[in-house]
Amino acid sequence: MRNSRRSQIDPFIVMDVMEAARRAEASGRHIIHMEVGQPGTPAPAGARAALSKAMVDDAMGYTVALGLPALRTRIAQLYGEWYNVDLSPDRVVVTSGSSGAFILAFTALFDTGDRVGIGAPGYPSYRQILRALDLVPVDIETAVENRLQPVPGDLAGLDLAGVMVASPANPTGTMLDREALAALMQAAAEQGAAFISDEIYHGIEYDRHAVSALEISDDCYVINSFSKYFSMTGWRIGWMVVPEDHVRVIERVAQNLFICPPHASQVAALAAMECKDELQANLEVYRANRTLMLDGLPQAGFDRIAPPDGAFYVYADVSHLTDDSRAFATEILEQAGVAVTPGLDFDPARGAGTIRFSYARSTADIEEGLRRLRHFMTERGSD
Amino acid sequence: MRNSRRSQIDPFIVMDVMEAARRAEASGRHIIHMEVGQPGTPAPAGARAALSKAMVDDAMGYTVALGLPALRTRIAQLYGEWYNVDLSPDRVVVTSGSSGAFILAFTALFDTGDRVGIGAPGYPSYRQILRALDLVPVDIETAVENRLQPVPGDLAGLDLAGVMVASPANPTGTMLDREALAALMQAAAEQGAAFISDEIYHGIEYDRHAVSALEISDDCYVINSFSKYFSMTGWRIGWMVVPEDHVRVIERVAQNLFICPPHASQVAALAAMECKDELQANLEVYRANRTLMLDGLPQAGFDRIAPPDGAFYVYADVSHLTDDSRAFATEILEQAGVAVTPGLDFDPARGAGTIRFSYARSTADIEEGLRRLRHFMTERGSD
Repeated sequence: MRNSRRSQIDPFIVMDVMEAARRAEASGRHIIHMEVGQPGTPAPAGARAALSKAMVDDAMGYTVALGLPALRTRIAQLYGEWYNVDLSPDRVVVTSGSSGAFILAFTALFDTGDRVGIGAPGYPSYRQILRALDLVPVDIETAVENRLQPVPGDLAGLDLAGVMVASPANPTGTMLDREALAALMQAAAEQGAAFISDEIYHGIEYDRHAVSALEISDDCYVINSFSKYFSMTGWRIGWMVVPEDHVRVIERVAQNLFICPPHASQVAALAAMECKDELQANLEVYRANRTLMLDGLPQAGFDRIAPPDGAFYVYADVSHLTDDSRAFATEILEQAGVAVTPGLDFDPARGAGTIRFSYARSTADIEEGLRRLRHFMTERGSD
Repeated sequence: MRNSRRSQIDPFIVMDVMEAARRAEASGRHIIHMEVGQPGTPAPAGARAALSKAMVDDAMGYTVALGLPALRTRIAQLYGEWYNVDLSPDRVVVTSGSSGAFILAFTALFDTGDRVGIGAPGYPSYRQILRALDLVPVDIETAVENRLQPVPGDLAGLDLAGVMVASPANPTGTMLDREALAALMQAAAEQGAAFISDEIYHGIEYDRHAVSALEISDDCYVINSFSKYFSMTGWRIGWMVVPEDHVRVIERVAQNLFICPPHASQVAALAAMECKDELQANLEVYRANRTLMLDGLPQAGFDRIAPPDGAFYVYADVSHLTDDSRAFATEILEQAGVAVTPGLDFDPARGAGTIRFSYARSTADIEEGLRRLRHFMTERGSD
């Protein structure tokens, strides 16, 4: 049997880093994990308690395809709390993580050969999911002076059927303010491109609130997840908000592609939304870690960074230190015992000169990681 | 925003039946559910206990994309226990239900425009998932004398890139024996078509064991799930076995499309595999229900049925009673208070003359449902 062309997907380089880190740990070394894009914390205690209780009372079979009505209603309410947006629960689609939402959105919006603009650097799976569906990812090369976010002029002449942006973004943590986001949405509309806003890092923000595309227009898809702020990565549960007249199409696609999102995860997610104290405590850890990183990375010699507005990443330009970020990441792992992600996953064109540091883990880990990085760079003589 | 052509998917007619049944219940009527394709039982007690425990000890973040190594190993062991097949855990891919496995398999094997043969009648989502990926479902119209399973001659001249079969099948419950399955696999190979065996109903079988395609050849994809025998529909957890040289491709596609299957569901599924007593007790209920159905349906006047070898469905030819199975199902719901599925979901060409009865629920429900059906048919004067 042959494999299809559409399945010829680039490997995740970070996976090789993680495997190398695992091998190092198996051989007895202690590794600080600044490569992983997920919280070290579990789902909130209230979420886990709710699920334990539900497992006694309920057979937990399939739910309806769009998700438990109570969860859709509670998510709609969040838009009032976070953005002062009045949202109908009918427009909320519960999904199998943001991954499931990407598959649904791309399927509902695009046909074979359609061109979809994505920011570079950006989340690597955007590109690969588009390819797997025989769509055409179009890298929008963003500028440092725009804090690596796309601007309307970047879309000119790209002939796009869709545009996807993320704010706060992975790997940079930079945000689009209301004006910048509105300008992008208008530029997309002017070329007839559907607009998809990936808001998965909303809630993890430091100096100002992230702006939702729904504050600006209803004529867009918004994707979010319980993975990051709600600390539920492994539960594979997220959501999407779509225009009213797209709900029925999404429902039919979801019925067939997924049947329903995981029932247990829906129960846990609904309860997680009432666990604000625990979630805010997690956020305070990220905030403390961020302060340490913005202080410690430049001290170590990683001084070409933009302060992140949100998420838990710092993206560093290391092109003055290496022209091979993959080899450089291997060197950092081997010499310093710190796992980091080479930029090639996020930006095939320019990522050989960048790396991403994650500060999602404990503050003690961040302190130790920064100490090791400082020592490594001093030894290396680049400091 | 426009919707894509690929998202123009047929509605599930059974969903309309379920909604009508829900409305009837909301208005105070008592409905017997012979429309649903899932067990009424929860996940095994041991599975739920294992998850409650894991939620205390483990942050349960992302797992690796192919699934927890212990679960892959245990699934491989099942092939020894059930089929006497020696299977490497490396070839086992844990998936987000069989739905996730279909998406992975179709993506890994087929390119835009490829023709994939599926049996009619058959599981409706095969057709819709193929369409959503811009592949071409090709209905293989099966014959009553072949118990509505495809035979090698049916594939002639279809120019297929792939063939998918299910044994036991939904909606018929009929199985392919070893010789019939081997002949189909050879016929597929002769026209260069990849072979996918949907084995989701394995374990729910009555007079003889279902045959796995892996007993015959390693050159195929086998899809299974914890939904049916293991009674875990809502958990969205399944698996796939692929040829050794396809594992890396599947891994990359899975990393990008799904990140990983739900962690909680993986933990529960691993424990479910040790809950044989409870699962066999569920099976004994289906067996008793099946006996009641094979006796009671003909008594009621539904006498054009083939005894199912497995699963928990009876597919009845009602073309002597109606030429509109959808209207007939509505009549049965309204008059008899029994929800059934019109055949149009399974066979667009011939389903106007068929309906599917499910016997997955309690024996008391089956007895009452049969009583109501008998009364309905007597009143209708068709008996």
